[in-house]
Amino acid sequence: MQLVVVGADGRMGRMLVRAVAQAEGCTLSAAIEREGSPVLGQDAGTLAGLPALGVPVTADALTAFAAADGVLDFTAPAATVHFAELAAQARIVHVVGTTGLSEDDLAKLKAASYHARIVRSGNMSLGVNLMAALVRKVAATLGAEFDIEILEMHHRMKVDAPSGTALLLGEAAAEGRGVDLPAVRVSTRDGHTGARKAGDIGFATLRGGSVVGDHSVLFAGPGETLTISHHAADRGLFAAGAVKAALWAQPRPPGLYAMADVLDL
Amino acid sequence: MQLVVVGADGRMGRMLVRAVAQAEGCTLSAAIEREGSPVLGQDAGTLAGLPALGVPVTADALTAFAAADGVLDFTAPAATVHFAELAAQARIVHVVGTTGLSEDDLAKLKAASYHARIVRSGNMSLGVNLMAALVRKVAATLGAEFDIEILEMHHRMKVDAPSGTALLLGEAAAEGRGVDLPAVRVSTRDGHTGARKAGDIGFATLRGGSVVGDHSVLFAGPGETLTISHHAADRGLFAAGAVKAALWAQPRPPGLYAMADVLDL
Amino acid sequence: MQLVVVGADGRMGRMLVRAVAQAEGCTLSAAIEREGSPVLGQDAGTLAGLPALGVPVTADALTAFAAADGVLDFTAPAATVHFAELAAQARIVHVVGTTGLSEDDLAKLKAASYHARIVRSGNMSLGVNLMAALVRKVAATLGAEFDIEILEMHHRMKVDAPSGTALLLGEAAAEGRGVDLPAVRVSTRDGHTGARKAGDIGFATLRGGSVVGDHSVLFAGPGETLTISHHAADRGLFAAGAVKAALWAQPRPPGLYAMADVLDL
Amino acid sequence: MQLVVVGADGRMGRMLVRAVAQAEGCTLSAAIEREGSPVLGQDAGTLAGLPALGVPVTADALTAFAAADGVLDFTAPAATVHFAELAAQARIVHVVGTTGLSEDDLAKLKAASYHARIVRSGNMSLGVNLMAALVRKVAATLGAEFDIEILEMHHRMKVDAPSGTALLLGEAAAEGRGVDLPAVRVSTRDGHTGARKAGDIGFATLRGGSVVGDHSVLFAGPGETLTISHHAADRGLFAAGAVKAALWAQPRPPGLYAMADVLDL
Repeated sequence: MQLVVVGADGRMGRMLVRAVAQAEGCTLSAAIEREGSPVLGQDAGTLAGLPALGVPVTADALTAFAAADGVLDFTAPAATVHFAELAAQARIVHVVGTTGLSEDDLAKLKAASYHARIVRSGNMSLGVNLMAALVRKVAATLGAEFDIEILEMHHRMKVDAPSGTALLLGEAAAEGRGVDLPAVRVSTRDGHTGARKAGDIGFATLRGGSVVGDHSVLFAGPGETLTISHHAADRGLFAAGAVKAALWAQPRPPGLYAMADVLDL
Repeated sequence: MQLVVVGADGRMGRMLVRAVAQAEGCTLSAAIEREGSPVLGQDAGTLAGLPALGVPVTADALTAFAAADGVLDFTAPAATVHFAELAAQARIVHVVGTTGLSEDDLAKLKAASYHARIVRSGNMSLGVNLMAALVRKVAATLGAEFDIEILEMHHRMKVDAPSGTALLLGEAAAEGRGVDLPAVRVSTRDGHTGARKAGDIGFATLRGGSVVGDHSVLFAGPGETLTISHHAADRGLFAAGAVKAALWAQPRPPGLYAMADVLDL
Repeated sequence: MQLVVVGADGRMGRMLVRAVAQAEGCTLSAAIEREGSPVLGQDAGTLAGLPALGVPVTADALTAFAAADGVLDFTAPAATVHFAELAAQARIVHVVGTTGLSEDDLAKLKAASYHARIVRSGNMSLGVNLMAALVRKVAATLGAEFDIEILEMHHRMKVDAPSGTALLLGEAAAEGRGVDLPAVRVSTRDGHTGARKAGDIGFATLRGGSVVGDHSVLFAGPGETLTISHHAADRGLFAAGAVKAALWAQPRPPGLYAMADVLDL
Repeated sequence: MQLVVVGADGRMGRMLVRAVAQAEGCTLSAAIEREGSPVLGQDAGTLAGLPALGVPVTADALTAFAAADGVLDFTAPAATVHFAELAAQARIVHVVGTTGLSEDDLAKLKAASYHARIVRSGNMSLGVNLMAALVRKVAATLGAEFDIEILEMHHRMKVDAPSGTALLLGEAAAEGRGVDLPAVRVSTRDGHTGARKAGDIGFATLRGGSVVGDHSVLFAGPGETLTISHHAADRGLFAAGAVKAALWAQPRPPGLYAMADVLDL
């Protein structure tokens, strides 16, 4: 499978280049950066800390997409919407790890998915997506005597809380219970809080060090607690998940897919 | 639902009496101890540290079963086989938490289940049974690049390792992978072990203090680990699980059920 | 050692009665409840779920203290101040597990400690007090490149956050670093928080189920995290800690002691 | 401080080169590989995935040591003994992270330390060495009613169990209790084990995925458990610890030091 990496000079872009180079069944056919980037013309492999791959970085996405089977994209909302349109024209796979997409952006991705095979997820790791499916099931199975709490820890540089992945897990729990997350979400506890309200879903946030991403969902009942936890040791796994999604989507009909589809959950 | 507790003077028997007294939808109709027990005639509630329930302990199981809807049984194999025959005659529910049953004992329970509704499990807690279902699913979903490890901790008095519950979880993992547990089970590692073999399921055992029972199943892959854990804080939850199983089985046809059926997993 | 339990009909009072009955080297000489309590005259052992101890509950603290070597007190601030005065008159040991004492209350305890041997702590468990000493030491040893985070979980009925014990641990960390906790304490994170500030001490709170009390202090640095955790399985350990404190204080001169003294930390 | 890295083409050697390049207060003065290595003459920075540092790899350790203030060494026992002799001649710092040294090797290091400042440890991370000091203290403080258990997890390629670091922690616990580790060490539990023996120190081993190194020491007592845990996210921290040790040792008199000295524990 011929894959294009967009945003090839970013931190995730370089990880995607390495993931494509290391995976079986795919090769890097192009690496894209925006017009004016100082790395245009440099070898994408060298940029990513690998031996040269013979793929110079270019700004010409249109030509690159026309010659490729898929594109890996962890850029920003406006760029992603544009790339989805190009992917639709080229009728190729578009794997979207970009976060912060608006309702309007999502509608445009939906439109593009009539011709492109788009796989989109807020977290491309296999483990987190499987975890979300488990959380949904457990929340649907256990009664109100089990309290749901979500704990996450990330590195000291992270600027928002709770993490997008914690919210994804909270939404899975809320879906399992058949409630809306905003109606039951409790994200702060400080001082005299009163007793916990039945049905609440609590979030707790730790920040420190260089932690890539740890998430736990606790189901705390009378006399027992069931906990599902995920530890991400390496951002490279998000890149590996994106490659896996591309390989999975290649033979499929156009449409908008989630990592849960890739994993057959 | 009228429930009988057998072995009413044992540690689990007293917990079962308390669980029946506290649950909604059931009452204690009889409490059984063996002929010659010094507690015959004493009030079962008082024995269990509750106010008197007006139920004197008796050795007459036959009469007790005839007047009841179900029996809760965490005794020993020979007694359990006998109680299963009485439960079949009375066509009532028989909840079996007894461990160490032989193949022959299980065959007799199977025979009794043509007339009795028998629910049997090595662990009556809701959480552990749900955990086993999750482990089976995760093991079936994740490929061989994820290594499965099972960790358990129990109090210093426990005499066997790994725990029955750890083995139950290991069997769930093996089923998910479509392998036989004995062929892949690794229970000791000491000295020069060599690298881990692909497909192995490892067990590690901790013993200490007064720990009621902690179990974790780890799925350790490249760059990420998914962990499912259960913490039992109180043996009372095994009794509560037995009561829940009895209430569930009452309207069902005769047969041999598992806690997974009770939980609809 | 002859010990009095005050507040003998409360949840902690009954635990203290059981702890005294089970410990070696001490006996229950009296059990106190306030004037008008319906349990006056009842046997303190029976009240605590034990066989009768031959100690009827009384409201006459003065007489009881005069005949005793020590008193165990997990009541309320006003009562505790009064009992401290009686303990000073009787020149006996006064173990104080009461929380929520004001500066004024503490001054009165200080005054009483010229004649009484008072041991006071917000958490009487051996483990938590040892943990606080470790946290102080680690915080003093590790530099600013390690971020300190404190996580606690308690049952769903707890009405305040963070727990008193979490704050005690935070104070130990702040002491180790030579800073004031209020100046660096971060108890909520929600939405756009910005990056973590160097030197902050973060608190995260989980609530659910029947959890007695779990506390962790994390020291998260570049590429590694050191964590110290405490799990309380049973409120009885707070009672056992109080008895240990009383036995320790008996041969000591009058003064105001902490559990750290009892443990020789 | 002018530092030499020996074994500069090994996995740890390249990490050491990166650590020296990134640390303040030191520079890479030479990089050593054995005679015949294919990387002789290549730039040590390029080898380590960095921009060129202007330091070609050489086999001439004697000249390199003579011009340096210290050497970082995670090689093999025979090489390390040789380098210690050269470091003694040059009267410089020798940081030794090599494992598997025999009694005889250690005697030679001791001899070399009359002229060299040698810092040796089985684990160069700050966190693990601090953890060992805490474990020693806790083991000395808590009585026999607390059971000590040590749990470790490493990646699937690790060939021995328990890890050297787990044994280092076990030795710290045994020292704290004033016992010999071999006399109380329990490394396997399988089948009918009988109840735990008082005073035993148990080891449990998990293997899987790409885990760099997780260690926990549990002190499990009646009703409570105190746990000290260390998570290594990145092998680079062992290199950073070595650099810190070198900087610490530079102004000190000749001698054989441990990381505990570096950390002032």
